[in-house]
Amino acid sequence: MIDTLGYAVREARGKLAPFRFQRRSPREHDILMEVLYCGICHSDLVMANDPFGRTPFPLVPGHEIVGRVIETGGKVGRFAAGDLAGVGCIVDSCRCCAACLGGDEQYCAERFTSSFGGRDRAGEPTHGGYSKYYVIDENYALRIPTGLDPATAAPLLCGGITTYAPLTRYGIGSGQTVGVLGLGGLGHLAVKFCAALGASPIILTSSAGKAGEAHKLGAAGAILTSDPGQMKRATGSLDFILNTVSAPHDPNPYLQLLKRSGTMCLVGIPEKPLSVHPISLVFGDKALSGSLIGGIAKTQEMLDFCAARGVAAEIEMIPIEYVNEAWERIERSDVKYRFVIDMASLNP
Amino acid sequence: MIDTLGYAVREARGKLAPFRFQRRSPREHDILMEVLYCGICHSDLVMANDPFGRTPFPLVPGHEIVGRVIETGGKVGRFAAGDLAGVGCIVDSCRCCAACLGGDEQYCAERFTSSFGGRDRAGEPTHGGYSKYYVIDENYALRIPTGLDPATAAPLLCGGITTYAPLTRYGIGSGQTVGVLGLGGLGHLAVKFCAALGASPIILTSSAGKAGEAHKLGAAGAILTSDPGQMKRATGSLDFILNTVSAPHDPNPYLQLLKRSGTMCLVGIPEKPLSVHPISLVFGDKALSGSLIGGIAKTQEMLDFCAARGVAAEIEMIPIEYVNEAWERIERSDVKYRFVIDMASLNP
Repeated sequence: MIDTLGYAVREARGKLAPFRFQRRSPREHDILMEVLYCGICHSDLVMANDPFGRTPFPLVPGHEIVGRVIETGGKVGRFAAGDLAGVGCIVDSCRCCAACLGGDEQYCAERFTSSFGGRDRAGEPTHGGYSKYYVIDENYALRIPTGLDPATAAPLLCGGITTYAPLTRYGIGSGQTVGVLGLGGLGHLAVKFCAALGASPIILTSSAGKAGEAHKLGAAGAILTSDPGQMKRATGSLDFILNTVSAPHDPNPYLQLLKRSGTMCLVGIPEKPLSVHPISLVFGDKALSGSLIGGIAKTQEMLDFCAARGVAAEIEMIPIEYVNEAWERIERSDVKYRFVIDMASLNP
Repeated sequence: MIDTLGYAVREARGKLAPFRFQRRSPREHDILMEVLYCGICHSDLVMANDPFGRTPFPLVPGHEIVGRVIETGGKVGRFAAGDLAGVGCIVDSCRCCAACLGGDEQYCAERFTSSFGGRDRAGEPTHGGYSKYYVIDENYALRIPTGLDPATAAPLLCGGITTYAPLTRYGIGSGQTVGVLGLGGLGHLAVKFCAALGASPIILTSSAGKAGEAHKLGAAGAILTSDPGQMKRATGSLDFILNTVSAPHDPNPYLQLLKRSGTMCLVGIPEKPLSVHPISLVFGDKALSGSLIGGIAKTQEMLDFCAARGVAAEIEMIPIEYVNEAWERIERSDVKYRFVIDMASLNP
């Protein structure tokens, strides 16, 4: 077993504090990684808040993990000691259902094994990347391509794939104007992906400050959603909207911004239902859709795309001791645009 | 001017009663039709109830009109006296916007002229098909193909196109299992279209009686939506759902019936917003969309398809004197499946 130091939450809405636990020794298909960087995703906070009473505690969060391989099982073929490797949300699945065979492990018929806060196929709890080491079957690990900075690559492993997958599924590219609703960890990556895919991203935000950063992120423009005049002028101007907002909101004004036959795709998951006026969809043949992360092969494609096109997250690097304050700042949307924990700061 | 007898509602929620009015004399591109049959669509009732305070009274309803051409303007080329002709929702539009030029007159940038309850391009009120005569520009009139019974064809002009357009837009065909939610005027036509397109239609209804009629209409089966066991067994079984319900309802249980990446398309327009759980869409990459009637060329395609494939509405023919009772029965969903007024019953 691998003695591992991490940070855990011990009860719903509790603080993160040091926690020692055991990881399995690498099996023949496993790699053992020393975690270098771990992104902080809003769903870490959701799991810790335990809205459905199902979170197993102690909870070691973290599912945007980049590390260096330090040991490999006997049958590992894709990684060697010294390589960089990544871990996202999915660390295992049944491997034989239609979804798994089709590369959509996020829809595994037996449910995928989550990288944290779940149980693995043997029934053992999974602990996330706010920790010194990670052990994962190489088939669910990602290669970090040469040219990607390992720290700014970490948020790609959830925030990146969550936005890249729908943008490519809906064929976003040249000639299209795409609204990105919400400019946080997901939204700022969506803006960069849209631009790299050849589309014109437009930031939809209620924050004048964020609207002002549109061009810095590669956006073609911004619409201040709190300004009725700007919203009205933008009616029917967007081919597609990626909606990254996970707070409660009214989707109808944004549906008005779509051109005919346009789609607004949700990747955030507000806890409360959205109230959708049927006429918002019927008048204009429009659609409101959803998308859930993405499979392993798609995640690798996204990382390779990022390396080739110079896409990376904008991050604020923090030491692990700062993590509770970082979580509080995320609750206030006070981060540009993703916190990444420098795991070198985690010392016994 | 053409002296015309019709039935009109004179105030919101009023009764229909005989009403004399003038139609324009046919212009050079117009045809004058003697109305033979007019379907009764739920939106006739909605307009008469005047929920938004915008309905012009007196209101002569009716937008599923089949008649015989009795006079043609000097430049009419597609119709001759004696021909059967049809009129749906759209009787004019700007003819030069992108939507009109693309055959999607329902999305005319200047709004299409409605066959009833609106104003024409000259500002005159439009009166619908609960009347002896109709005058329409031949470019917005439909040919009733040989082989279609004019009475059972009438409901195709709104109910038919409203369901046919999304089914063909979403490529419904062989190998697909399609849920049809709501078995009324629209739903029963959707079932027939799905079957004729080669798909397997499944009726989704809360009425055991209607479920029992599934096979008679050509459905492959039925799911009794009020039976939790049947709903559970059908989870993830449908490629597409056409939602024809215009009463308030919870869409989330139906979204659960979709396969991954499936779409539920609304063609009914409930007045109240639908409450959509984001997870109903995000988990499964699903979509909730909408569709509004269809353009003139698409409507003609639909009529030709119906003639070729033997698709027609199931109707209850009524004399005009019965129309108020028919409206009351529609409010109670007591019709299989569309009332059609025999206009021969309208005598001065």
